[in-house]
Amino acid sequence: MDARVKYDELTEFTTKVLEGMGYPRENAELTAWVLVEADARGISSHGVGRLDFYEKNIKGGFAVPTAKPTIVRETGVGALIDGNHAVGSVVAKFAMEKCIEKAEKVGAGFATVRNSNHFGMAGLWAEKAAARDQIGMSFTNTRICAIPTFGRQRILGTNPVCVAIPAAGKIPFMLDMATTTVAHGKIEVYERRDAEMPLGWVVDERGVGTTDTKAFQKLFWSKSPDGGHLFLGGEGEELGGHNGYGLGLLVDLLCAGLSMGRWSYRTFSGTGSGIAHFFGAIHLSNFGDPAEIKKHVEGILEEVRGSHRAEGQERIYIHGEKESEAHARSLREGVEVDDSCMALLRGYGKKFGIPFTP
Amino acid sequence: MDARVKYDELTEFTTKVLEGMGYPRENAELTAWVLVEADARGISSHGVGRLDFYEKNIKGGFAVPTAKPTIVRETGVGALIDGNHAVGSVVAKFAMEKCIEKAEKVGAGFATVRNSNHFGMAGLWAEKAAARDQIGMSFTNTRICAIPTFGRQRILGTNPVCVAIPAAGKIPFMLDMATTTVAHGKIEVYERRDAEMPLGWVVDERGVGTTDTKAFQKLFWSKSPDGGHLFLGGEGEELGGHNGYGLGLLVDLLCAGLSMGRWSYRTFSGTGSGIAHFFGAIHLSNFGDPAEIKKHVEGILEEVRGSHRAEGQERIYIHGEKESEAHARSLREGVEVDDSCMALLRGYGKKFGIPFTP
Repeated sequence: MDARVKYDELTEFTTKVLEGMGYPRENAELTAWVLVEADARGISSHGVGRLDFYEKNIKGGFAVPTAKPTIVRETGVGALIDGNHAVGSVVAKFAMEKCIEKAEKVGAGFATVRNSNHFGMAGLWAEKAAARDQIGMSFTNTRICAIPTFGRQRILGTNPVCVAIPAAGKIPFMLDMATTTVAHGKIEVYERRDAEMPLGWVVDERGVGTTDTKAFQKLFWSKSPDGGHLFLGGEGEELGGHNGYGLGLLVDLLCAGLSMGRWSYRTFSGTGSGIAHFFGAIHLSNFGDPAEIKKHVEGILEEVRGSHRAEGQERIYIHGEKESEAHARSLREGVEVDDSCMALLRGYGKKFGIPFTP
Repeated sequence: MDARVKYDELTEFTTKVLEGMGYPRENAELTAWVLVEADARGISSHGVGRLDFYEKNIKGGFAVPTAKPTIVRETGVGALIDGNHAVGSVVAKFAMEKCIEKAEKVGAGFATVRNSNHFGMAGLWAEKAAARDQIGMSFTNTRICAIPTFGRQRILGTNPVCVAIPAAGKIPFMLDMATTTVAHGKIEVYERRDAEMPLGWVVDERGVGTTDTKAFQKLFWSKSPDGGHLFLGGEGEELGGHNGYGLGLLVDLLCAGLSMGRWSYRTFSGTGSGIAHFFGAIHLSNFGDPAEIKKHVEGILEEVRGSHRAEGQERIYIHGEKESEAHARSLREGVEVDDSCMALLRGYGKKFGIPFTP
């Protein structure tokens, strides 16, 4: 049975685990917030279950928990930031705050970032801008897992994009999506269930679509460079897979191209993981009165919500709503943590001598 | 047999047809360039075959061929532009030039635009920025045709996005894509061939996926508000359709939301079509030396091109390459015009007394 753990308790415990791994208190608090927020919103793929990945990043020398990002170049609206292999949350906060500051001052701000690490769910950074009447953007490349259209080699990442647009309702519109059809965590769920995947998620070592979850997982973790995730739109061009691949490649060009950093194919080789990001903020006041624009945006969302539903469907969702509702429930009832994740946490509790008895 | 018509001849003829429809010479030349460029690049869905749609827009009072856009509000990096129901190419050129000017001056420029019309293929505007060492963005909403995830009502458009990123090769990276799985022109091709569509393109009046091309076309042009295009990722959430829908909605929020204009659902109702756009330009020099960045970007593209191909595939494409190669061939051998389009052109030749004998 999956458990629910109080938000504050889970955050404090996670902070202490990260301190155990060598994070200074301030960085541990920030990273714990990033992980617990993801779980609280129902995005467990980016939650505290990632603690072992974060530990591996430190042990492998990919992330340096005491490192700090620096500004390499700065203009009125732009910045090139070197993450100096600091942990991703520290780099992302620094870069996004720089964008927000610029958007407050001159209307817009953009930062391209090299030599960073996994920054958690992209939305956490974009929504910081949205809370300030700004459009927020947060993109990142990742370790390799995905193939281009007509390819078979893993050379691109899940390369998520997030754009948040302020609205007059309780929450902004927030699209936070992998550019691949699914993130890898979803395949692991199918593997545990011993179920076949739908066609359109992955290709095998020949570059041909497959539904065989077990065989794919074996291939994916083998030394073969081939076989991997498909981008949104799936295999070939018939369902628009070339456009999904284009979005994924776009993310790598904005993150690694502009920053002279490493694109997905070159991450986790050499010093640090070399993960690269791109952030942006554009103030609504460039275009009109923010309050009026937000009301107009909300009016559009309201019409979408009220449009005719498909047979058997109860609701048309706006992006960000599911996560916001899960978050409210997590604050009330505790954050859901599944069995395998609880075991992971208990293990860390023992390892670092931190009491954990939810 | 499809014919090939000399680029200049087709442009001059199209210009005269547009003059016949009431376009002043300058606007006719610009719009003819927009249409012929699309054909020359192999994007016939946005080519001279659209002349009858453009004529309908004028006759219906949706587009005013003599109107000019105006700036409603302007900041250092931003502008709100009212198209005043001018033709889309005139508005798009005006707005994109404003963005480019701002990016030259302060590093970035963005324009949200209301009360415009169909502006042709989005890439033509974004690549103007890319030619000046800027990242170019060009988005637009369209007439309604698409449904949100779990919906069945046509409330959104094909809502294309284009982002162009300068590179050191002959052409920029240019992703120019509908956010729907396919544009409507593709369905018409299947209708003419009397072929079933792949599942994932459209839903019927119940909001359920269908492959029946004939029945769908009948429904699509009926008075029923239901049944329509799916977004990238198709029906439901299994293949990421909610993310494609999010991209489509994002486009409407940037175009119509920020401009206080009409979103896709409200286009072609009231005065003018009310089509809305969003443009952006960000100068590479914000982040480093443009020549170095372009070389680094090209290096990434080169590695993508050289990655392992799927069984039976001969090439991994970068976005913009197919169109660029088709363009070069069109300049050499003439622009390909299919039979039905030739008949349309001959009809306009007769109607306006313009000689056309390719």
